[in-house]
Amino acid sequence: MTAGVTGQVTDDRSARAAWSRVSEPGDLALGALVGSLGAFEAWQWLVEYAPLAGDQQSGAGPGPIDRPWVAPLRRWARRLSRAAAEQDLQAHARQGGSVVIPGDVGWPSRLDDLGLEAPLCLWVRGRHDLAAVLSTPVSVVGARACTDYGVRVAGQLAVDLGDRGHTIVSGGAYGIDAAAHRGALAAGTPTVVFLAGGTDRLYPAGNARMFEEVLGAGGVVVSEAPPGAIPARSRFLLRNRLIAAVAGATVVVEAARRSGALATAHRASALLRPVGAVPGPVTSLSSAGCHELLRSGEAVCVTSAADVCELIEPLTENGPRQDPSPRTDDEALVRGSLSARVPRSGERLTHLTGLTIEAVQGALGSLELRAEARRAPGGWLRTPG
Amino acid sequence: MTAGVTGQVTDDRSARAAWSRVSEPGDLALGALVGSLGAFEAWQWLVEYAPLAGDQQSGAGPGPIDRPWVAPLRRWARRLSRAAAEQDLQAHARQGGSVVIPGDVGWPSRLDDLGLEAPLCLWVRGRHDLAAVLSTPVSVVGARACTDYGVRVAGQLAVDLGDRGHTIVSGGAYGIDAAAHRGALAAGTPTVVFLAGGTDRLYPAGNARMFEEVLGAGGVVVSEAPPGAIPARSRFLLRNRLIAAVAGATVVVEAARRSGALATAHRASALLRPVGAVPGPVTSLSSAGCHELLRSGEAVCVTSAADVCELIEPLTENGPRQDPSPRTDDEALVRGSLSARVPRSGERLTHLTGLTIEAVQGALGSLELRAEARRAPGGWLRTPG
Repeated sequence: MTAGVTGQVTDDRSARAAWSRVSEPGDLALGALVGSLGAFEAWQWLVEYAPLAGDQQSGAGPGPIDRPWVAPLRRWARRLSRAAAEQDLQAHARQGGSVVIPGDVGWPSRLDDLGLEAPLCLWVRGRHDLAAVLSTPVSVVGARACTDYGVRVAGQLAVDLGDRGHTIVSGGAYGIDAAAHRGALAAGTPTVVFLAGGTDRLYPAGNARMFEEVLGAGGVVVSEAPPGAIPARSRFLLRNRLIAAVAGATVVVEAARRSGALATAHRASALLRPVGAVPGPVTSLSSAGCHELLRSGEAVCVTSAADVCELIEPLTENGPRQDPSPRTDDEALVRGSLSARVPRSGERLTHLTGLTIEAVQGALGSLELRAEARRAPGGWLRTPG
Repeated sequence: MTAGVTGQVTDDRSARAAWSRVSEPGDLALGALVGSLGAFEAWQWLVEYAPLAGDQQSGAGPGPIDRPWVAPLRRWARRLSRAAAEQDLQAHARQGGSVVIPGDVGWPSRLDDLGLEAPLCLWVRGRHDLAAVLSTPVSVVGARACTDYGVRVAGQLAVDLGDRGHTIVSGGAYGIDAAAHRGALAAGTPTVVFLAGGTDRLYPAGNARMFEEVLGAGGVVVSEAPPGAIPARSRFLLRNRLIAAVAGATVVVEAARRSGALATAHRASALLRPVGAVPGPVTSLSSAGCHELLRSGEAVCVTSAADVCELIEPLTENGPRQDPSPRTDDEALVRGSLSARVPRSGERLTHLTGLTIEAVQGALGSLELRAEARRAPGGWLRTPG
């Protein structure tokens, strides 16, 4: 058997890399096969039986292969000659990439909820500790065809979620996806781009510079498709299941009635992830999909990062949270203007809040007493909670 | 006893008219008294015991009046000299008005759901068959301080609800209230204005001409307060309970976080009336109250008259209605441009839809086959359902 035929598979990792080359994302038959045999044994089975796949009609009588497996075997066998796991892994590593598989520390375990549709591996560029980057992720999704309003809301939401320590997850498309990543970049928080094609094809090209910024800022570009894979239309829809599964909540910012973002929302909801939808003018077709999610009860109305956080950590009390000593308006304003990461000076806070320096200092004092703000080199930080 | 002291009360109707002069709306003690004695006997009790009200301390020992009734008796007795039911009724009749009481054919029985807080009578101007006008009413409420967006949406909603045969109910305020009534007037549907003060005080004065148009167009101006009553702030809040109770559903178009329209929504919801809220930009403070209703689950997101109709007549099937042969885009467009009341010509429909006359005719043919549109003198009508 030549290297080309075995696909240079020597272990579980290279088997998964090889499988990602010969299969399409979300292949249920493959999920079942790998689930029962393991990726490495499944690959050996493929290599052994692929030459026989053509000899047996899937609908016909008994043969060397169990009948339900004839069709999948054939579809994998057709691509077997392309498999070159070692070469793929090496090329990917030359770009600073790595492959993360189940069992790795970096594997985001939420993906396991996809069951048979879980990805076999993730081709990762950027930080390799993907699971750590994704510790409290929120998916912010929406349409490419969006309005200025949507771009503004998605960006601000990402900034505010970033400030609260949440990683942003989205696709790499123009419109809402890009606005969300740009917001995260502005907040200085890592952001994660799930691509439909290979991570060596930063698609769409118009966002290439943004992808590079994401990588430069401690973010991640990730795909279940191997390097060189084309971002085909079907792969976008399948990619959406990863965005839905990997996050603690999914927020749809703007989506027309048939937007792919709704599929992401449906999938998140089917996976029992909370879904938020941002409302907009009823006169805007770009918000019609969001309103549909609200009407069906599939999504909760979210208008701010605070609303999104409630999605993830629902109030434990029955009813609105009772603050022991409610914040004054000034305190709320000042706290809202603090970042969890970037210390802000009293002077900066007077600019942000429009309050006098005395009022800002008074509010900071009260917030500090309640452990809602703390001093840091160069200013004040918001404390979580 | 002089006429001034008896209040010229001769029967249930004049007793209720007299009571509306000496009490405030929603007086629970009065509700209980009238519920147990009847309005006429309750009035006789008031006339008999009012002179003794001053002699007994409400907190002190036994006296001629049961202790819990001392405070209410006093508050009613203070105004007793103002009661002049016959004069009130005659003055109101001179304005073309009538008084509607429970048991009258014109009494809107939904108000009985208010229990002890139900109004004793309604002072009506305009069509006297109030219950008939209110056969399928929808309350459209919102803030005085609204945006152009809110005015546009409220107006269009009222037009479309009117086209579908729904009466509009609202207050008489500037902003959303007025926009809703104007929409109903544009649709040629009766609209009902609930005032907080007397129906002889068309408040606010800036809407006086609109009120006259409402009356001229077969609409109704109604109040539980007698002629001359001042539209005091407390009466506005109490008036809201009538708007909530009298309609099959309440829709909030725009409301800031503390708008009185939210109180109407809360009351409607407490009365088990469906509540709809129209979403808007999350950046608009005028929509923040609506979003709050959506977030709490108290209201359903409504974006169109069709959505409001679903509130009133929920789909009987579990899940979205399956159309046997779904409408084409053209058919949906044409049907959406048809009115249930005003026949529209093919030419008018080409203007409304932007389609060619051929496309309009084709769509009308299909709609007719499915009994979704019908021919009428002068054009085409939408058929219900």
